[in-house]
Amino acid sequence: MKVASVTSHDIRFPTSLSLDGSDAMNPDPDYSAAYVILKADNGAEGHGFTFTIGRGNEVCRAALDALAPLIIGADLSDLGDFSRRLTHDSQIRWLGPEKGVMHLAAAAVINAAWDLVASRAQKPLWQLLSEISPDELVNLVDFRYLTDAITPAAARDLLADAVPGRADRAAHIQKIGYPAYTTSAGWLGYPDEKIDRLAREAVADGFRQIKLKVGADQADDVRRFALARAAVGPDIRIAVDANQRWGVSEALDWMTALAPYDPWWIEEPTSPDDILGHAAIRQGLSKAAPGGGPIRVATGEHVQNRIVFKQLLQAEAIDFVQLDACRVAGVNENIAILLLAAVFGKPVCPHAGGVGLCEAVQHLSFFDYVAVSGSLDDRVIEYVDHLHEHFADPVVIERGSYRAPSAPGFSTRMRQESLVRYAYPEGEAWS
Amino acid sequence: MKVASVTSHDIRFPTSLSLDGSDAMNPDPDYSAAYVILKADNGAEGHGFTFTIGRGNEVCRAALDALAPLIIGADLSDLGDFSRRLTHDSQIRWLGPEKGVMHLAAAAVINAAWDLVASRAQKPLWQLLSEISPDELVNLVDFRYLTDAITPAAARDLLADAVPGRADRAAHIQKIGYPAYTTSAGWLGYPDEKIDRLAREAVADGFRQIKLKVGADQADDVRRFALARAAVGPDIRIAVDANQRWGVSEALDWMTALAPYDPWWIEEPTSPDDILGHAAIRQGLSKAAPGGGPIRVATGEHVQNRIVFKQLLQAEAIDFVQLDACRVAGVNENIAILLLAAVFGKPVCPHAGGVGLCEAVQHLSFFDYVAVSGSLDDRVIEYVDHLHEHFADPVVIERGSYRAPSAPGFSTRMRQESLVRYAYPEGEAWS
Repeated sequence: MKVASVTSHDIRFPTSLSLDGSDAMNPDPDYSAAYVILKADNGAEGHGFTFTIGRGNEVCRAALDALAPLIIGADLSDLGDFSRRLTHDSQIRWLGPEKGVMHLAAAAVINAAWDLVASRAQKPLWQLLSEISPDELVNLVDFRYLTDAITPAAARDLLADAVPGRADRAAHIQKIGYPAYTTSAGWLGYPDEKIDRLAREAVADGFRQIKLKVGADQADDVRRFALARAAVGPDIRIAVDANQRWGVSEALDWMTALAPYDPWWIEEPTSPDDILGHAAIRQGLSKAAPGGGPIRVATGEHVQNRIVFKQLLQAEAIDFVQLDACRVAGVNENIAILLLAAVFGKPVCPHAGGVGLCEAVQHLSFFDYVAVSGSLDDRVIEYVDHLHEHFADPVVIERGSYRAPSAPGFSTRMRQESLVRYAYPEGEAWS
Repeated sequence: MKVASVTSHDIRFPTSLSLDGSDAMNPDPDYSAAYVILKADNGAEGHGFTFTIGRGNEVCRAALDALAPLIIGADLSDLGDFSRRLTHDSQIRWLGPEKGVMHLAAAAVINAAWDLVASRAQKPLWQLLSEISPDELVNLVDFRYLTDAITPAAARDLLADAVPGRADRAAHIQKIGYPAYTTSAGWLGYPDEKIDRLAREAVADGFRQIKLKVGADQADDVRRFALARAAVGPDIRIAVDANQRWGVSEALDWMTALAPYDPWWIEEPTSPDDILGHAAIRQGLSKAAPGGGPIRVATGEHVQNRIVFKQLLQAEAIDFVQLDACRVAGVNENIAILLLAAVFGKPVCPHAGGVGLCEAVQHLSFFDYVAVSGSLDDRVIEYVDHLHEHFADPVVIERGSYRAPSAPGFSTRMRQESLVRYAYPEGEAWS
């Protein structure tokens, strides 16, 4: 099965008209997708995308077009080779390496290839991945720059240890679903009464964790956090998310002010590039919670690749690995990140929201549980109630958990009418 | 003075036809520039570019076009504000943040603005920068994510300490020039006799340091290094450059094999993202040289931004800071990097070569000597003898040193006939 054609699309939703998605760094996002459709020589289709927040989505589309010569004619029988072909091309690699716009585009293409292969196999992606042998999984991963933390042999052993329990865990997770937390209550632009109402609704809907955006104004954040804590009570976890707003000392100061309300984690306290900064913040907050326990540190949605995740783990800089389905080089690099997290014993709690990120990333968490970490302890997938109606196979949330996807593929296909209506700039939504 | 218009250009040189520029990661580069021309409302022009090695240069051009709405009408009287406008736009920032294609484009634009301002002031850029007050220099820098290593106040103090010696150092450096080393002898694709001949010529031309590319085949590298050492004798420094080819253990193994020939530094032993990997390599090589001294570690041409440089210094991962004129956000972010290097007491030895990188980066080293570090100890600017003929104000090398640029501007302007001939894909050079 070879790739016969590639088309790219610039899809944007005018979400800045509401304040959904507003945070301390991103006041007015227009949730967007640089979207790619691969067609195989046998007629099979795969859809994938990368997520942006508006301006510059056309640059990602240009990057998709730049990758096309590496894709046309490529064999889809070895997606390890396919993904390395995209990230190892020396001239393209110069533009990163393995980061930024070119890597976002590689994510879209690699994810589309997996959608194609899983669709063709008539299986949801998580299930397809969960049936692959340890040796084949290891072949999917690019171990370059990782072997000081995990070797192919160690990865194979880890995966092999999980093989005997795969069937039981697959059955279990299909029955109970994968725990979610919701960010929908806590956008920075929301008025107090809306936070109060949405926080209560989240608990009533079965969520055991919510998240608040922080970082614009400390006094506001204290007020909003106190209000949310009062609304949900002491037993619901409340994470906070600064979206990279701070330096190290600001993070320590701000989180000390929020500590009395018992934050579960502080997410993106500083630059995603600042491994040592995260380590200093985590160390500084190791006894900051009420009762002297830690305020935990989480990051990942903007972490550029497996090499930075490796170091965040080596430096003991984070407690939670928040991988993103579309920022690193798609499914393949995310398998590397799941393996790293498992080796270091850290829970993966994926970033989601945006447009289509919930649909995509759920597959990785289901796969992680069945075939990699084998654990649900402290693991939750982010959930945001936005834009799911544009997808052919939208996520299903029941009692605060993701139901296992059952349709073939990667759940990454937008409905045809949405692709037309939200095409930028020519679609009706933008006229 | 405001920006009235922006034009972008895709300029490529078919350098892959020779093996100039070949290394272990980049076997066939076509040296290219995503080039931008700013025109001010008073008619002044500024030229800038970012450097790529071919495919994907059009993506950088698309990124330049995406930045245009942030540039048109911008006031050029405060280039600190101008540079932050380009890197802080929240929607654009999502595509990095501050890395990859969008950051390469920001570099081109910011450098063009400095070329415009320096040309208008009728001064070479290094001299213009060297006359700016410490307070104004501090205002040019984005200290976000840096204050755990350097605060604005500490930067101001450091710059103020250097003010009294500025005039003397400016006179001195104009007299003696800035020391260079040459990479022209050591490309991976060159046959042995060419290496031998070019290494001898380099010494005869006055260079006190040369550099060899390594990393493709260890036995070849040992042979080539032995040959180069025999050609130049024991007193000439020979640096080696692996262009990111290795992981940590490979780097240690390979450099142990090369150690008998006394390498001055190992450059880019591993991924530019791997701060902790560089630290482990540096530690592992701290007694590896003949006599038990260190093999030093250098990196920077692919280091994405000031935040990663900060950590390379904090982690004691490098001995030399190899900033690049066009990969980070231009002159402004490079001032931040010069300040960081000065605080940590590490020499800056800029990356150059490619197309136009020598022309641009020399200004930063002259400025560093006059107004920041005040030192020439162990400092050298890379020199590669390629493509200078395409520039209106090409570098001048005499007896192994860069002569101080004297023409107004940033030396970043290509000759008009080169812009036409090498325009891709329509120029005559590509027909």
